[in-house]
Amino acid sequence: MAQVLVTYKTPKDTAAFDKYYAETHIPLAKKMPGLRKYQVSKGAVATPAGPSGIHLIATLTFDSMAAVQAAFTSAEGRATAADVPKFATGGADIMFFDTRDV
Amino acid sequence: MAQVLVTYKTPKDTAAFDKYYAETHIPLAKKMPGLRKYQVSKGAVATPAGPSGIHLIATLTFDSMAAVQAAFTSAEGRATAADVPKFATGGADIMFFDTRDV
Repeated sequence: MAQVLVTYKTPKDTAAFDKYYAETHIPLAKKMPGLRKYQVSKGAVATPAGPSGIHLIATLTFDSMAAVQAAFTSAEGRATAADVPKFATGGADIMFFDTRDV
Repeated sequence: MAQVLVTYKTPKDTAAFDKYYAETHIPLAKKMPGLRKYQVSKGAVATPAGPSGIHLIATLTFDSMAAVQAAFTSAEGRATAADVPKFATGGADIMFFDTRDV
């Protein structure tokens, strides 16, 4: 399996972020071809030292890195990526990687 | 479910890191009570802009945030946390959060 990990830093208006993410971004992202699983953090993202400065973490699972690439170059993937700046006012980091169970 | 996400920045010696992580750290971490799933990245961690500076991402899944707290305050969890500085020469960031499927 392969994962896309998106960490959203705390936005200017968390209530507006949450509303837009739930009502607009999730439905868009779920249209991406090959998406197998979509998880988001619920509640605070903490670190051993305290608050993380991260408002939300999304993990999208695909069958392979090839499937990730296909998803993000599809029309639906391009629309999903183009949507991020509309609500991620604190910025977002995106990472792609293959995974294995240990 | 709840997750512990560990991002290891590129260490000074990646081969030494990989050997220690596989032979010592994984066996230690797997002893933590309540650990349901343990996934690590395989190969490069990429970003849309290119290399990420992250060498390895580990995702540990537990039933709940209470289970995460119990795991990390157990003797096995304390030993696992104390082991990290022995090989994470590039530094590591740890985040804890509850998750939900969307």
